[in-house]
This record gives sequence, C-alpha cells and structure tokens, in this order.
Amino acid sequence: MKKAVVVMSGGMDSTLCATLALKQGYEIIALHFDYNQRTMKREKQAFNDICDRLNITKRLSLDVSFIAKIGGNSLTDKSMQVPKTGLSDGVPNTYVPYRNGIFLSIAAAVAEKNDAKAIYIGVVEEDSSGYPDCRAEFIKTIQNAINLGTKDSTKIEIKMPLVSLSKADIVRVSLENNSPLELTWSCYESEEMACGVCDSCRLRLNGFKKANSTDPIKYKF
Amino acid sequence: MKKAVVVMSGGMDSTLCATLALKQGYEIIALHFDYNQRTMKREKQAFNDICDRLNITKRLSLDVSFIAKIGGNSLTDKSMQVPKTGLSDGVPNTYVPYRNGIFLSIAAAVAEKNDAKAIYIGVVEEDSSGYPDCRAEFIKTIQNAINLGTKDSTKIEIKMPLVSLSKADIVRVSLENNSPLELTWSCYESEEMACGVCDSCRLRLNGFKKANSTDPIKYKF
Repeated sequence: MKKAVVVMSGGMDSTLCATLALKQGYEIIALHFDYNQRTMKREKQAFNDICDRLNITKRLSLDVSFIAKIGGNSLTDKSMQVPKTGLSDGVPNTYVPYRNGIFLSIAAAVAEKNDAKAIYIGVVEEDSSGYPDCRAEFIKTIQNAINLGTKDSTKIEIKMPLVSLSKADIVRVSLENNSPLELTWSCYESEEMACGVCDSCRLRLNGFKKANSTDPIKYKF
Repeated sequence: MKKAVVVMSGGMDSTLCATLALKQGYEIIALHFDYNQRTMKREKQAFNDICDRLNITKRLSLDVSFIAKIGGNSLTDKSMQVPKTGLSDGVPNTYVPYRNGIFLSIAAAVAEKNDAKAIYIGVVEEDSSGYPDCRAEFIKTIQNAINLGTKDSTKIEIKMPLVSLSKADIVRVSLENNSPLELTWSCYESEEMACGVCDSCRLRLNGFKKANSTDPIKYKF
C-alpha cells in the first residue's frame, strides 16, 4: 500500500489533506509538531481526535520546541501580542520563521525512513495570512532540494491540494468529503473556546460565511 | 557587523568553517545540534571548547532528539553497528535521513530571526562518506528554497567553503589558519579516545597522513 506522510496541525486545512490522502488510497503516517505554541495542548488534542475519527493509527508527534527557543513570533513569544484587529498587509508577527521549511525537512526524513513516496501539506497561498513559506513556488523548490539531499532511490512528491483554494472552497470540499470540521482547531490564542478575532479565526469564519455554512465549533464572540 | 550562522558539530570541517568565517569578518552565531547520537556529550564538549578558543560568545545548542525518534541510522540506533571495516560503495548506515536538510532549515530560521545574511556549513562532497545531503547541488537548491520560503527582505547565502576539498586539503588549510584541530572530535562511536576505525576516523586519519601531518588527538588504535 502506498504511503504518505501528512503534516497535521489539527486545523481544518491539514485535516482536509488527510481526508483527501485517504481517498487517494494512501496509508497515512500522521506527523504533528509541538513547539510550545500558545495552543499546543488544544492542537495536539485536535490532532488525536481527528486521527481517531479517520482511523489513522500511525502517528508521530515530535517535540520541536527549539522553534520557541529561536523565537521571533507571537505564537511562541508570550511577550508579543497576537493581532486581533483584522488582517493587514505584509507578513504578520504570527509568522514563525521558516516553519514549513523545518516541518517539510523533518517530514522528508520521516518519509525516507518509512519509504513513503508523498508528503501532504495544507498550505494555502492566496486566502491566507501571507506567510512566505506557504507559496507554491517555495514548495516546488523544497521538493527538488529534498530529492537532491536524500538517497537516489528516494523519490518524494510534495502534494499541496489546497494551495489554490479559498477558505470557502476548503469549507465546501471538507463538507463534500466528510472531513471532520467539528474536531479541528484553528485559533491562535485560546484553548477553551476559539477567540474569533485572531487572523486564523477571522479567515476560518469568513470561509464558512462565504460557503453559506456555519462553523460547528464554539466561539467566545 | 555582518552576521553568519555557522553549523558546528565539533568536527574539524565545521571548525574550519568557523575559522574562515571569522577571517572573513563575520560575527558568528554558532549553532549546534544534540540528537542523542552516540557521541553527543563529546561533540558538545568539542563545540564549547572550540567556541571558547575562537571567542565565539553567541552560541545556540538545540535539542533535535526527534531525529533519534525517527531513527533509521546507526548513529542514533544502538541496535545497529557502526561500520568499522572501511568505506564501502553506496550510502552507509551512518547516513542520518536528510540531516543536513533539517539542520539548514533550522539554521535558516535562526538566520532570519537574527538578520544574518550567511550560513556556513562544512559539507565535503568527494572525499567523504557519500551522504546525499553533502552534495553541492543540494545545497544550492535548498538555498533557493530558503530564500523563497522566508520573507522577501530575507536574503541568505549558504557558504560551503570545503565542498570541493579533500580531507588532506582540510588539514592543510586548518593548519595554515590556526584552526584548533586539537579540540575537534570526529569519531562516530567513542567518547573517551577516538576509535580509529569508523569511517569518520578513517577519513580523518587518512587526511592527516596525506597532508604529511600528525593528528593531535588520541586514538585507541
């Protein structure tokens, strides 16, 4: 059975990736990262709930808390404020330096070790926070790097099925494919009820609204 | 003062990189990785001894022990044997899947956070163990990926001054530049005295021999 490593945060984008990978017939190795981000516990719970629902037994949850030690972002540095007044131009302070580069490099090692031929990542290029490590051109280039920097027999394709979708598209495709939206977590700041006002909550709520649907999770506001 | 992140294992290649970066006028951020490899303590000691000697105060030692959790190599998996009968064709079991890809991705995050414009890595392409993540083409491609996956204002050059050198060249250039060879550690297996028979010891000893020099560190054999 063909294998894929799926980078899963517990959010709705990576959950849809897992749903689509299963539909494509892949056996999934679910890869999750803990890095002392504000909502670390809640994301890990979402990750496990989603894997339970999707019957994914191969799970690897890795401690990458060195990311918090490097710092420079408001998700790990509690002395910084997560923006709550709406998306602005430029790269916001929730950008974690080269996070997807680090995650994909680790995913490549996991894929090589386990003979997986694909890595799924739920990057979204346009309808997003404007993180540079979510751009399609970056993903294509790091795929080349990974194939040059691993054994000649290792051939890995990085799949990014959501890269050109809007958040509304993601909600629609999730509903069509029974992706468990109700188990996902997107909020950057809160672990009890989603804050509703951070960029991640705003993008998510806007997606549901534009898809004429209602978000099944609870919000403070 | 221009800044460079130097990936430093404690071995003679990365130590020469640090020596050369200082000579080029860089302020150095020394980056070391612990990953539960067999000689972790000894390498960390070498790293600190070398930084002390070179007056490098900015040091970042990061726990990347998830590498041992991924496994698939004899440096972290003690149930596997480190080869001791000489270099063979193909990729040996001391190859840690995509290690330099992971290290360079983390170095990129450190560089972006700290406004460093260069990353030094002591990869050697020919006179080496044949690891795929030590090839120049890989390093050039991951440099492109890093610049696409970080902020547009972030421009990072990956410098690999040793990539085309032989081990004998590295010994000669180290001696010419007073790189502290006596403080470095290369052995894959032992922490007291170098084993002298693993691939890394063999490459090192052969380099000293061809450079008509004597290795200042102690060996069992």
